[in-house]
Amino acid sequence: MTQKYPSVLLENAVNEFSKLPGIGRKTALRLVLHMLKREQTEVSIFGKAIVDLRMNVRYCKHCHNICDDELCNICGDPRRDNSLVCVVENLKEVMAIENTGQFRGLYHVLGGIISPMDGIGPSDLQIDSLVQRAANGSMQECILALRTTMEGDTTNFYIYRKLAGIDLKISVIARGISLGDEIEYADEITLGRSIVNRRSFQDSFKV
Amino acid sequence: MTQKYPSVLLENAVNEFSKLPGIGRKTALRLVLHMLKREQTEVSIFGKAIVDLRMNVRYCKHCHNICDDELCNICGDPRRDNSLVCVVENLKEVMAIENTGQFRGLYHVLGGIISPMDGIGPSDLQIDSLVQRAANGSMQECILALRTTMEGDTTNFYIYRKLAGIDLKISVIARGISLGDEIEYADEITLGRSIVNRRSFQDSFKV
Repeated sequence: MTQKYPSVLLENAVNEFSKLPGIGRKTALRLVLHMLKREQTEVSIFGKAIVDLRMNVRYCKHCHNICDDELCNICGDPRRDNSLVCVVENLKEVMAIENTGQFRGLYHVLGGIISPMDGIGPSDLQIDSLVQRAANGSMQECILALRTTMEGDTTNFYIYRKLAGIDLKISVIARGISLGDEIEYADEITLGRSIVNRRSFQDSFKV
Repeated sequence: MTQKYPSVLLENAVNEFSKLPGIGRKTALRLVLHMLKREQTEVSIFGKAIVDLRMNVRYCKHCHNICDDELCNICGDPRRDNSLVCVVENLKEVMAIENTGQFRGLYHVLGGIISPMDGIGPSDLQIDSLVQRAANGSMQECILALRTTMEGDTTNFYIYRKLAGIDLKISVIARGISLGDEIEYADEITLGRSIVNRRSFQDSFKV
């Protein structure tokens, strides 16, 4: 049933909120009514923050992560190991890996993965710039850290082929049983790999 | 764990989104990244719609519903029955009741209900204006359609006392077993009321 909103301004605001992913018209209305209860200046700040980001966003010229300058904090940090480059889908994976505190190298943000269903091909992603980086720079190892789906595997394989002529170690992040997983319920591929790629008990304490 | 965002602009946008009710920092980041994939003009339109609403919102001088003019569409419609006024909490209830197509009277939007826990007292709501409307206008019946909670009952009773001196029928919407409810699982108060307030079988087909 179509809702009849009592105000065009209200309807516009609800329409805009409901264009966001995962937000339906009921939630959009709830958010809009919440906005009406806040101070005018607060709502201005909200609008400005979103528009400012979109207008002034910059991407690091090395790793293509979102940043405020030419180079991101990570690429600009001389203490990071520039021989190691971890290839990820986007910003969220950079943040997740940074949170582990286990990686001291640099990143390369593809901006997505190859997905013909969504119309995303290799030319839409930062793959050529990765190849250039690998050919010209100090990169010695390229770690592929994409999602473990068919699209992720396809992208991994495409990148592997593209980097084939370059003298470089190419690795992928370990796949295995997660912390807290029950062996009984693990899928066969993951469980099989975790047995094939087993580590010596003593090594397993090293990080 | 605190997240380190690679850009101040990004962090501001995430902060603003995560101030909305029901939106945490992970969802906020997802919404912000979605905004970055959209065209600049689309994002401007989004920001403008929200700010425009907050800056230019108007409330109907009769019923206090959100509208674009002095009077809302409902109060301005001469075909509506102005002897019947339905008291509701806010816009969402107006829309829900309008969607039933069963009510041809007018509304009075309180803007909330009495809730000492949230610091909302009678003076924060449009109760005085309801009393004035009842005393001066053509209102013959006032239908209380607030939520069936302690706060709703308190507000109902407060309004009932305020309207006591005025020659007016005061009614509340029927409480009973909802469509599809199982009798077995209904609470005793609702079930008790549904028996006390039973209707003749033939009447029950009338709307």
